[in-house]
Amino acid sequence: MKNYRLLITYDGTRYKGWEHQPGAETVQGKIEVCLGRMLGLSASPEDYFGANPPIELIGSGRTDAGVHAKGMVASVKLPTEQSPDTIRDYLNHYLPDDIAIREVREASDRFHARYNTTGKTYEYTIFDGPVKPVFIRKYYTALDEPLDADRMAEAAEYFVGEHDFKSFCTNPKMKKSTVRRIDNLAVRRNKGYVTITVSGSGFLQNMVRIIAGTLIEVGYGRIEPSDIPSIIEAKDRTAAGPTAPAKGLCLLAVNYD
Amino acid sequence: MKNYRLLITYDGTRYKGWEHQPGAETVQGKIEVCLGRMLGLSASPEDYFGANPPIELIGSGRTDAGVHAKGMVASVKLPTEQSPDTIRDYLNHYLPDDIAIREVREASDRFHARYNTTGKTYEYTIFDGPVKPVFIRKYYTALDEPLDADRMAEAAEYFVGEHDFKSFCTNPKMKKSTVRRIDNLAVRRNKGYVTITVSGSGFLQNMVRIIAGTLIEVGYGRIEPSDIPSIIEAKDRTAAGPTAPAKGLCLLAVNYD
Repeated sequence: MKNYRLLITYDGTRYKGWEHQPGAETVQGKIEVCLGRMLGLSASPEDYFGANPPIELIGSGRTDAGVHAKGMVASVKLPTEQSPDTIRDYLNHYLPDDIAIREVREASDRFHARYNTTGKTYEYTIFDGPVKPVFIRKYYTALDEPLDADRMAEAAEYFVGEHDFKSFCTNPKMKKSTVRRIDNLAVRRNKGYVTITVSGSGFLQNMVRIIAGTLIEVGYGRIEPSDIPSIIEAKDRTAAGPTAPAKGLCLLAVNYD
Repeated sequence: MKNYRLLITYDGTRYKGWEHQPGAETVQGKIEVCLGRMLGLSASPEDYFGANPPIELIGSGRTDAGVHAKGMVASVKLPTEQSPDTIRDYLNHYLPDDIAIREVREASDRFHARYNTTGKTYEYTIFDGPVKPVFIRKYYTALDEPLDADRMAEAAEYFVGEHDFKSFCTNPKMKKSTVRRIDNLAVRRNKGYVTITVSGSGFLQNMVRIIAGTLIEVGYGRIEPSDIPSIIEAKDRTAAGPTAPAKGLCLLAVNYD
């Protein structure tokens, strides 16, 4: 058994997210079945979330339905001596054209794509100009009125640091710690685009989309930048803005030491 | 009645081309119905290719099913006093999100988007690298083996000038002249992309796609660059290469004096 590290990009539009689940098209499910077929193992998706999966593709984390990725990382132990490039080319040949394996490389036996993560970077893209670009329309959230991106950038600074982000978590029954560290949160305008880039230790369920939704409220003047600390303090989902649509979100990169 | 000039971009993936036709989704059809609705005229697509269309949107030319455009130009006479920006915003609000009106401006009464054309520029995009980009996968033709772009660029030079391009026309019953002038034909490689950009006086049916298909044959060594003049001379469709897929083609710009 060799351990491999995969760098993956996908258009999440038609998937029920990363994580395999019964009766649904998922990114993890597609790749697992494809790896299984390559190795002459089961080609039935159900076997891969059963009790004894033939192989287990471990993602750095989940992405929600409709969320995209340019730099998802996964690890997988495979009973094969095939070269990383051969594995990559096989997968790219047989995977649907909205998933691509950018790189496969051998990893140490101890490498685990989820446990070893030290941070992630997400990008949230909004378009608020008068003429919406048609070719990339599935990768941004369109707004009809222009945002004040300077106000949003001012608000963004309050998020940086270690905080309890319970107000920015969809799961109300979250029992584990909701404390996370945000290292960087930048809001940039480039013509009709407003891009929110956020890096941190890890993110709660829907956390980036709720931050984006809250920053949009700031951009429309419905929340003041200086309100952010009290929204964080509230530790209450209803204190923050709405969850911004999935289609604007993209996992850019996953970090390891 | 005022005459307007529209600059239009569309993702042609799901359309049966530009030109309106019975029972098919077309770009011209979508825009005509939308303009009709704005003016309180008929919202029935059939009325717009009937004997007395309520309005007539004149494109600079047709694009085939599946072909894209960044710079299609059309003209239309409308019984309205609405400002160009109001018309643009109305259309962009109600058109499907794979069609956008980049600009509407008033034109002289004599401006006719088809008759007044002095030239067009098309771009044909091929990807031949190992990892196909997923986000723009509907806008290039994917090839598994790398092309020799230098050979293609060498072949491209033979196309420039005024020639009878009958070998590069799908329609065998074409009665009008098949003589056209190509002003520029460039082949450029940028990493995994090979882009063919062609400007000329006008193009026959499938002409750009047959030129692209022929250049791909050159890139694979199956046709010599120096064979191009005799292929043109043959005035026979079977002498040229295959018609490259529609999805790689995009109308970049239409010129007027």
